[in-house]
Amino acid sequence: MAAPISRPASSRTRNAAASRTAILEQAIAEFAAQGVAGARTAAIAEAAGVNKALLYYYFKDKESLYAASLEAVFSGLVEALLPLLESALSPGEKLLRFARAHFEYLIRHPDYPRLIQQEMSCAGSRGEPSGGFRAISTAHFIPLQRAGMRAVEQGIASGELRPVEGAGTLSAVIGMNVFYFISAPIMRALRGADPFSPRARRAHIASSLDFIGGALFTDRRRGIGLAKKIAGDSSSLPRAPQGKGRKANTHES
Amino acid sequence: MAAPISRPASSRTRNAAASRTAILEQAIAEFAAQGVAGARTAAIAEAAGVNKALLYYYFKDKESLYAASLEAVFSGLVEALLPLLESALSPGEKLLRFARAHFEYLIRHPDYPRLIQQEMSCAGSRGEPSGGFRAISTAHFIPLQRAGMRAVEQGIASGELRPVEGAGTLSAVIGMNVFYFISAPIMRALRGADPFSPRARRAHIASSLDFIGGALFTDRRRGIGLAKKIAGDSSSLPRAPQGKGRKANTHES
Repeated sequence: MAAPISRPASSRTRNAAASRTAILEQAIAEFAAQGVAGARTAAIAEAAGVNKALLYYYFKDKESLYAASLEAVFSGLVEALLPLLESALSPGEKLLRFARAHFEYLIRHPDYPRLIQQEMSCAGSRGEPSGGFRAISTAHFIPLQRAGMRAVEQGIASGELRPVEGAGTLSAVIGMNVFYFISAPIMRALRGADPFSPRARRAHIASSLDFIGGALFTDRRRGIGLAKKIAGDSSSLPRAPQGKGRKANTHES
Repeated sequence: MAAPISRPASSRTRNAAASRTAILEQAIAEFAAQGVAGARTAAIAEAAGVNKALLYYYFKDKESLYAASLEAVFSGLVEALLPLLESALSPGEKLLRFARAHFEYLIRHPDYPRLIQQEMSCAGSRGEPSGGFRAISTAHFIPLQRAGMRAVEQGIASGELRPVEGAGTLSAVIGMNVFYFISAPIMRALRGADPFSPRARRAHIASSLDFIGGALFTDRRRGIGLAKKIAGDSSSLPRAPQGKGRKANTHES
């Protein structure tokens, strides 16, 4: 369909939005791979197919572009997870589904854990996170953490969960997923197996949900059963190759 | 005491060993802060109080120095943890004590998690760990992982532990500690509290051991009780300030 000559402003707006999105996508990839210090705006502009002047027109400087990149990635995480924590599910089921959804968000957005790692490596040498990271953490992590803590507290109050410690519990749930990503390159090198194959992903989800269900629920049998059900729910799982050639595995039904 | 003039060789040997140790200590700190690419051998030599020629005399090049740094840090980790896994304790108690000893090793050697983070940030952009890291992982991580897996399997066989998945269980135990370090700068910035104060450390140990005890033991009440006992064992814990000025806390006995 030819662009109607009577709508130049709309067309320009659409192109502008597309250019901005392209710059942001390339910036996220570059910051994830190189860190803020190592990232080059010239490389980002080139990968996005725009000139550097346009990049600086949309994003004042490299720090602003970094802040916008963090904002884009973190707001996506919150949009994916907050509705779950604010749903009508029981607190225990919220936490189990949160653990799975968090892992799946990391799988779908591999630049997210890399950005965090880059930020934390720099924080390690500086002793604190960057200003951009701190602002975005406050805007996004705190509401998510509060909702998670509320779920734990409600679960304890209703008797569904054991009297566990809220912050430590959330940290354990998130930490299991984050560590899986951090250790993935080592695991790949040592075992020669892809930690992100559909089978490996399913194994991680099953194992971590079983751990959480076994640890938190007052009725442990129910927690483990619910974990198994949620881990096995194939509605949003990547499918493994099926067929006669597939090796039988007695651990799977 | 004056150095006896009749023992110059011994004295020289001692100085040589001391110089080598000083270089290695400074190298670990520099690699942890800057990563391999960012680390400067000139800065390491200066911090160690030796000239660059001596550094290159002991360690052929920057890569060799990096490999020696990894070796020093990882072999220390294995020495701290392997005897525990090979002890006569019950498998469940081994895993609980492993979780605590691992966290305490990270506390005592903060350059260790930073080195891993630097390595993993680079691995993230390269897609694989460095050659030095791979060799040292094979030499140290694999025996440690095997011993951990064996403990899980023995615990399942004896009925002490639920039929959990070995690799995922170990990964969860280690991941909780590693994530605590990774998220510490964010937590410090967001909450304004020191995540490495004696109180915060005790809280992490208590919470993570409770999670593990609650998740893994067939007799969950025993697992939780054992976790509480091991977390509260003050033999190797940093002491918090005591006295009349200390605020009463009903959560602590």
